[in-house]
Amino acid sequence: MLRQTLHEFRISTRGRGLYEFTQQVVGWVANSGIRDGLVTLHLRHTSASLVIQENADPDVRRDLEAFFTRLVPDGDPLFIHTAEGEDDMSAHIRTALTAVNLSIPVHQGVLGLGTWQGVYLWEHRSSPHSRKVMAHLLGE
Amino acid sequence: MLRQTLHEFRISTRGRGLYEFTQQVVGWVANSGIRDGLVTLHLRHTSASLVIQENADPDVRRDLEAFFTRLVPDGDPLFIHTAEGEDDMSAHIRTALTAVNLSIPVHQGVLGLGTWQGVYLWEHRSSPHSRKVMAHLLGE
Amino acid sequence: MLRQTLHEFRISTRGRGLYEFTQQVVGWVANSGIRDGLVTLHLRHTSASLVIQENADPDVRRDLEAFFTRLVPDGDPLFIHTAEGEDDMSAHIRTALTAVNLSIPVHQGVLGLGTWQGVYLWEHRSSPHSRKVMAHLLGE
Repeated sequence: MLRQTLHEFRISTRGRGLYEFTQQVVGWVANSGIRDGLVTLHLRHTSASLVIQENADPDVRRDLEAFFTRLVPDGDPLFIHTAEGEDDMSAHIRTALTAVNLSIPVHQGVLGLGTWQGVYLWEHRSSPHSRKVMAHLLGE
Repeated sequence: MLRQTLHEFRISTRGRGLYEFTQQVVGWVANSGIRDGLVTLHLRHTSASLVIQENADPDVRRDLEAFFTRLVPDGDPLFIHTAEGEDDMSAHIRTALTAVNLSIPVHQGVLGLGTWQGVYLWEHRSSPHSRKVMAHLLGE
Repeated sequence: MLRQTLHEFRISTRGRGLYEFTQQVVGWVANSGIRDGLVTLHLRHTSASLVIQENADPDVRRDLEAFFTRLVPDGDPLFIHTAEGEDDMSAHIRTALTAVNLSIPVHQGVLGLGTWQGVYLWEHRSSPHSRKVMAHLLGE
């Protein structure tokens, strides 16, 4: 019979960049005893993102960061929301351009990621933060 | 035992901008009697988006709009799909750059939004529209 | 009583562009016997996307492709991840700017897409690929 469980992941960040937490999600699913179902992740912040990206070559994450830094300049004179620093409005825009939700099926006890996929929290602020990800697991 | 319920939200827009409907979602979840579970929202249009953004300072929404207006120019000479007006193709691109789906866990009767998160329909067309959001709630 | 089913769609691509697979999803839902519920799709790759876009005028897809080609230039000198070709890092960035997950409610046996919405795999690599989409269907 179908059942569900909820969890909260905490991820500490040390400035901009992609922080992988695939193994935390894998471990939580394994411990749940659920073999087939669906994991949904929701990030409770508006200046960071959840993304699935390549976890093989770290240059991919470096290039993602470099591209977004150029696309969404910190301290852009266009911005009027500047009270929280030059990286704040750019962080909100990076969040809008990416995502705060992910949904990944689970099949035979295995998270349905592709060979090169990892689950990342993408921190868009320059200073360290403690980020919370709510997780919902449905299945049997 | 797990159960589900479906609903459709209607949101009237008066031109470009972010329209918050967090309280409508909160009210629907409260009325359902479901205390723990998952809300999924799907926007039935290709020229508007669903986003979770900061609901504290309205300047954030103003800056989001300003940034996307510059990033995706209306009437860009690159576009050949122009029959429905200068803001039509740019609206489709804004939709591709953002999202039409959101998923938010519910815990102890409370929608799992962060302190500063609100649920928004982002209208990308200049003229008023009536937008439909299909909602699915799973839980117990 | 609620139940779930899992499936994998395979989509063959012949270079960049949007490949519609709405009818495959519609057929799978119809065959499941589930009348009300939620479909979730997850793409198992980091150089392609899942998007919901207009399925009426093919010019919309052409303009989407043209805009993303200009926004994320192949072989950008900014990139250091270049070993897999000029279109590889741009493909990862296009994926980050769009999505790899979609969630669509099902109501009375009908997928809850709007009138003009189609479900697309967006291939970001120039060469042909075989892409896998994991699908989860919950409902009754």
